[in-house]
Amino acid sequence: MDLTREIPEINLNPIQRGGILTPEARQALIEWGDGYSVCDFCGGRLDLIQKPNIQEFIYKELPAFLGCDVARTTNGAREGIFTIMHFLKKEGKGKYALVDGNAHYTTKIAAELAGLELKFVENSGAPEYKINVEGYRKFIEEEIPAVVVLTYPDGSYGNFADAKKLAKICKEYKVPFAINGAYSVGRCPINMNEIGADFIIGSGHKSMAASGPIGVIGMTKEYADKLLKISALAKNKEVCLLGCSSRGATLLTMMASFPAVKERVKHWDKEIEKARRFSAEMESLGFKQLGEKPHSHDLMSFETPILYEISEKHKKKGFFLYQALKERGIGGIKPGKTKAIKISTYQLADEELAKVIGAFREIIGENRGLLE
Amino acid sequence: MDLTREIPEINLNPIQRGGILTPEARQALIEWGDGYSVCDFCGGRLDLIQKPNIQEFIYKELPAFLGCDVARTTNGAREGIFTIMHFLKKEGKGKYALVDGNAHYTTKIAAELAGLELKFVENSGAPEYKINVEGYRKFIEEEIPAVVVLTYPDGSYGNFADAKKLAKICKEYKVPFAINGAYSVGRCPINMNEIGADFIIGSGHKSMAASGPIGVIGMTKEYADKLLKISALAKNKEVCLLGCSSRGATLLTMMASFPAVKERVKHWDKEIEKARRFSAEMESLGFKQLGEKPHSHDLMSFETPILYEISEKHKKKGFFLYQALKERGIGGIKPGKTKAIKISTYQLADEELAKVIGAFREIIGENRGLLE
Repeated sequence: MDLTREIPEINLNPIQRGGILTPEARQALIEWGDGYSVCDFCGGRLDLIQKPNIQEFIYKELPAFLGCDVARTTNGAREGIFTIMHFLKKEGKGKYALVDGNAHYTTKIAAELAGLELKFVENSGAPEYKINVEGYRKFIEEEIPAVVVLTYPDGSYGNFADAKKLAKICKEYKVPFAINGAYSVGRCPINMNEIGADFIIGSGHKSMAASGPIGVIGMTKEYADKLLKISALAKNKEVCLLGCSSRGATLLTMMASFPAVKERVKHWDKEIEKARRFSAEMESLGFKQLGEKPHSHDLMSFETPILYEISEKHKKKGFFLYQALKERGIGGIKPGKTKAIKISTYQLADEELAKVIGAFREIIGENRGLLE
Repeated sequence: MDLTREIPEINLNPIQRGGILTPEARQALIEWGDGYSVCDFCGGRLDLIQKPNIQEFIYKELPAFLGCDVARTTNGAREGIFTIMHFLKKEGKGKYALVDGNAHYTTKIAAELAGLELKFVENSGAPEYKINVEGYRKFIEEEIPAVVVLTYPDGSYGNFADAKKLAKICKEYKVPFAINGAYSVGRCPINMNEIGADFIIGSGHKSMAASGPIGVIGMTKEYADKLLKISALAKNKEVCLLGCSSRGATLLTMMASFPAVKERVKHWDKEIEKARRFSAEMESLGFKQLGEKPHSHDLMSFETPILYEISEKHKKKGFFLYQALKERGIGGIKPGKTKAIKISTYQLADEELAKVIGAFREIIGENRGLLE
């Protein structure tokens, strides 16, 4: 079976940009690749291993980074959301999860698995698709939810809703508030306690330069005392993590990348500037950026009617774009997509983005004859 | 932070022996290390990706290997057990999990998280600690369990109980039967349908030469239709796996090692012979092998009263053994342990095992003066 990987020179896929390993993580991956390597020095609790110093990472570094009281690693962001929802469902204070209309599908599926119903606070529709957090209030007043979730930012438009305001609303009604930070934790500065949330979820492979699957959850001390309950049957093991959660090279890659990740979030302002410049250039080609404007995240959706028009007449149909970009060393746009495309500029150099803009310009030019 | 790994030349730890990466897996790890690498070619369902051919692996190779109708990968064996238990708890046909007294702690913790009570079929006690599967019958007759679990073999003594007989008992009472094969799948031939079980669970990092965390579950078609329910809210996504389960380099390492793993299980008879020879040699040093005799698995426990006696007078106390083995390039015995030790001979060469026996002989000889 052929297991070689075809990597485009420039990968625009938002789920890829934040997960590219640092050289340190690549080294850790090779060093700790073997199955249970990390367990050689375990005294019964993976999160307390000091060689390598997982304990310091989980008990000191990670909570400081997330701005929370207590943190743990999980098998991914979705697994972290499920862990929180499964716990809150058992708490029995509500029957449903109240989430933003831009929520990632994994939030929905986590609720389904946890046995929670779902209600959605709709977005404002085209072109900005914003979430007005005041919309949560009506639902809460009708019926107290088990948990309120905000996708921050969401993975479709890269919008940041007013999380602090939503935290205040949740406090008012004493409803637990979880922030899905799969696209923020590890990319930009974010602090759970400053926002006033009860839980925060992050993704290692999406935004923390870690090899997947791995995620993080952070929480307040109050919730930690209940959520991280010790097993009645297995000594010292935390039930909600099935004892260990992320065990292996995934965790070591996250730790190895961590110094670089801490550093990169400090330069988030540069990433925003870059995203805005890129958006303006894309619009000058006749595309239309969706989501908040001016934009404050590297993840952006663009309506690209010109490309769609070409696809209708092109002999390769919708696949012409994928192919044309591939020939230019650019990947990450789903094969067949031409009506609207999702792009991330994260950690791409100005020259790389110039190459992307140039490629789109060329592709339109080449196919000009197909447009009337 | 220091992330270098200290690897003993010979690692006797049973959780390590089956998870050492093949050269092919090591290559796949480097190739597919980046966060979401595998998702570049995903059309919405990870298990249907054909480049690399995950689809063939999950839909053809894996079910054939496990002897089941339908298979999936999971984030680990414990996550697989939880997935099954969580589903069966919701089915509502029983309130408890009926498991063998030698069950791994993760089976207990999975039941706790799924909200199932636990009942245990006790083992026969020292020195063999066998499970008589007829013991399950009494419990089932008293109250139908949600699931019957057999740890096959268990991780303490490496005992194989009579799984086929237990399958017949379960069929008689129409109770779902799950085999925890964390120490068999990938090490020795095992076939779910031949045994007559409904579910089988395996561990990638423990026994399939994969980088963790990753596991596999197999099941009958009947259960697959219900367990692998598609989300009502997220297109095509299987709820119980939160959409994708193992996504990333972990899966690719499992696939890369798979040809070697399929080959190695064919030589299981050699592994048993080796384990038996090793056991006899250990006993000739004055140690006593626990568990089934003659033994049929590479995982073995030994009572080592001589080593304990030395530890009581040694200035390093119980740590003398760990240290003395380490000096000889041997690892995998928990620091401080001397009363009883757990060892695996899996995939070790005769010369390596001779070195281990020689080391124990030397260590006893050196400390002869401490024994009266």
